[in-house]
Amino acid sequence: MSDAPTIPAPAIGLPPAQFGAAFPFHLAVDRDLRLVQAGASLGRICPDLRPGVRLDEVFRSIRPEGPITREWIIGHQARFFLLEHRASALQLRGGFVPLPGDGPLLFLGSPWITDPAEIARRGLGFEDFAIHDPAVDLLQVFQASRNALADAKRLAAKLTSQPSCAPRTSGSGCRRPRRPSWR
Amino acid sequence: MSDAPTIPAPAIGLPPAQFGAAFPFHLAVDRDLRLVQAGASLGRICPDLRPGVRLDEVFRSIRPEGPITREWIIGHQARFFLLEHRASALQLRGGFVPLPGDGPLLFLGSPWITDPAEIARRGLGFEDFAIHDPAVDLLQVFQASRNALADAKRLAAKLTSQPSCAPRTSGSGCRRPRRPSWR
Repeated sequence: MSDAPTIPAPAIGLPPAQFGAAFPFHLAVDRDLRLVQAGASLGRICPDLRPGVRLDEVFRSIRPEGPITREWIIGHQARFFLLEHRASALQLRGGFVPLPGDGPLLFLGSPWITDPAEIARRGLGFEDFAIHDPAVDLLQVFQASRNALADAKRLAAKLTSQPSCAPRTSGSGCRRPRRPSWR
Repeated sequence: MSDAPTIPAPAIGLPPAQFGAAFPFHLAVDRDLRLVQAGASLGRICPDLRPGVRLDEVFRSIRPEGPITREWIIGHQARFFLLEHRASALQLRGGFVPLPGDGPLLFLGSPWITDPAEIARRGLGFEDFAIHDPAVDLLQVFQASRNALADAKRLAAKLTSQPSCAPRTSGSGCRRPRRPSWR
């Protein structure tokens, strides 16, 4: 903030209801990593996320890899995490944020979904994501990227199937391409 | 939440410091839409975001289009917003969240950047984005998509520039297929 002294340190936070709406896939765990709160969208599609369940019983950490303990998480809090819900294989991308003192440890993130069909398959709708969450944009760009690749493959297949001017056999007046170049 | 009665309504929110870290591009305005808080990354690259400046003096709304007033924003609060910083043309995608009572109106969002070069051009680094923000992923997928398209174009250009069998002069006994079957 040294470059912008005119903007003071934040004094406004997010009350619980607005926090829940802003992060419908969040997790909050206590000192013993037992669940105390989960986002509404996440709680709906992962019914085993009951208060009191231990985080490592319901999730494993894919990135970084390691045993889910409070110390380990806090030691990696500057890192991006990819968590996998054990029961459903739903993946969440995000980061951990410890609250001051002995406060809960929050996981702020949202599903890592690259296939639009997975949204419906998981019982989710676009309205389950926060308005500011670019996850849905990401999904659309993934889809556009996949379509572009598929188009490119089709184009390449079409073009390579056209006869090209392969080396001609000499000795004949007929300049017909050799068979192999026809496919 | 009716499907998951085991998860109670949220009781935990985000204190100011953690909120600021989670939304380094947020805005908070008072009842008169005067700026009271801005995320550290946004404040650094948009030095005209001083406390007291009116939101519509520094931003215009591209989507939805309309005059930036408190009533208009609250009437569209379920909508996705694309704001443009007047001075720099930086675009922010996100949504507005009114805090209870006469509390501030928050804009939760992050830059809408589709070209990786724009990050550096705007004086931003990846560390300016929240860990949970998929904006950086989005950027990488955009780039991958663009690369795929460029590859496809190159491939198409290469394949179409290969000598194809141009129309031959007739009058030979060569049984060359008719043109239409060549493509």
